[in-house]
Amino acid sequence: MIVVKVGGGAGIAYDALCADLATLTRAGQRLVLVHGGSHETNTLAERLGHPPRFVTSPSGYTSRYTDRATLELFLMATAGKVNKVIVERLQHLGVNAIGLSGLDGRLLEGQRKAVIRIVEDGKQKVLRDDWTGTVEKVNTHLLTLLLNAGFLPVIAPIAASDAGEALNVDGDRAAAAIAAALGANTLILLTNVPGLLRAFPDESTLVRHIPRADIEEYLPLAQGRMKKKILGASEALAQGVGRVILGDARVAEPITRALAGEGTVIV
Amino acid sequence: MIVVKVGGGAGIAYDALCADLATLTRAGQRLVLVHGGSHETNTLAERLGHPPRFVTSPSGYTSRYTDRATLELFLMATAGKVNKVIVERLQHLGVNAIGLSGLDGRLLEGQRKAVIRIVEDGKQKVLRDDWTGTVEKVNTHLLTLLLNAGFLPVIAPIAASDAGEALNVDGDRAAAAIAAALGANTLILLTNVPGLLRAFPDESTLVRHIPRADIEEYLPLAQGRMKKKILGASEALAQGVGRVILGDARVAEPITRALAGEGTVIV
Repeated sequence: MIVVKVGGGAGIAYDALCADLATLTRAGQRLVLVHGGSHETNTLAERLGHPPRFVTSPSGYTSRYTDRATLELFLMATAGKVNKVIVERLQHLGVNAIGLSGLDGRLLEGQRKAVIRIVEDGKQKVLRDDWTGTVEKVNTHLLTLLLNAGFLPVIAPIAASDAGEALNVDGDRAAAAIAAALGANTLILLTNVPGLLRAFPDESTLVRHIPRADIEEYLPLAQGRMKKKILGASEALAQGVGRVILGDARVAEPITRALAGEGTVIV
Repeated sequence: MIVVKVGGGAGIAYDALCADLATLTRAGQRLVLVHGGSHETNTLAERLGHPPRFVTSPSGYTSRYTDRATLELFLMATAGKVNKVIVERLQHLGVNAIGLSGLDGRLLEGQRKAVIRIVEDGKQKVLRDDWTGTVEKVNTHLLTLLLNAGFLPVIAPIAASDAGEALNVDGDRAAAAIAAALGANTLILLTNVPGLLRAFPDESTLVRHIPRADIEEYLPLAQGRMKKKILGASEALAQGVGRVILGDARVAEPITRALAGEGTVIV
């Protein structure tokens, strides 16, 4: 079992990704795809006059401030467009993909963080009406039901709160939780860089290998969204996933290349 | 088994609908919900500067002209927002709803009509690049799998073409195809009128009962979108569904009321 997460940034080669998924599926590989939607959400939000707002937590993690209007834009862009266009590409290639958000069938359950602490201009502030959360439980029964029936699940990073509310969750950490819950041997996090860079954005400084015991030492190298990927990788490994590979989503055969060791391999 | 279709027009009481679905589900009723998304799609399309265009076929049926940009707006509004907000309401009420489009797992398969004939200003014209279709096959295996596992499927009116393309399909006729494929005893089509009106929009002229043999005679009474509901009703009855009820989606307990005979009952 391989869980692949593809980022929602600009420059992702979705055609190449889907072609690679089709090849691997035909070879009998069991796969789950988790995707992002940040670029589509930003574009939609700008066009609708509700521009995105990114905030930084006291521990240095960046995330989208998700008020209710933003949540609904996120549902449209991510569960509506990105999810269905990926499913369409896969269906076109003969892969019986099924697109779901984590809200559907409570596939991903999380805790809402309605009030978040952020750092802005060096000061700590509190934001309310936030619709983000952290995945705490994966409904493996539903995923296994679909996998055993021959479907390839394509999952949008939305979770259900205890009260059934939709929550914007981090896709990398959601993929990590899914990989751990399914007992996946490999988690691949694809993004628009070749992996963890020692001197971002210089791609010649790619870190090729990280022993799992040393992962904390590499956290300071991670910039922006890469921090959550390292955190997700760390969470997945701690819960029994065999290896995590940070790979490049802009190239042909991105999954096959990651499996061959291109990118940052954490074992 | 009851299949319920709720229109995507303005004025739909989604809270009342979801509460009624929760009551019926708790009483052990097996249900599938199909929804529309026309109002949300129109709103989004207007806001994004790509206003909707409705066209009329030579036989007098109205539909949305769906170029690729409109298809993607339709995916966002219908599969993204309407579907997920309904699922969220149901999850909040303790119903384990699962939202899908007909593209997912090829739940609904259809034929694309890339070229359509329309009548405009009294003249026949041809439109190309259309992404609409008609449902020809329902994947009952997937639906049954989900129903047997205790989920309530919530379905957006999108189908997969032979080539795996996403197609905008009519929700009423999709619901009719689903009801027929599942061998449902009842199909309920809820909309923002009380049923078929003898003199639209005078709601005191509600037609309460139509014997199935006479349905064709009532077609001339149907205005606008009601024509497709009568067509869907006719298709469902021809394929073995026991009865079709055209009910009001603006009231409390809309399904329970329809089952009690409020609206237009076709048997």
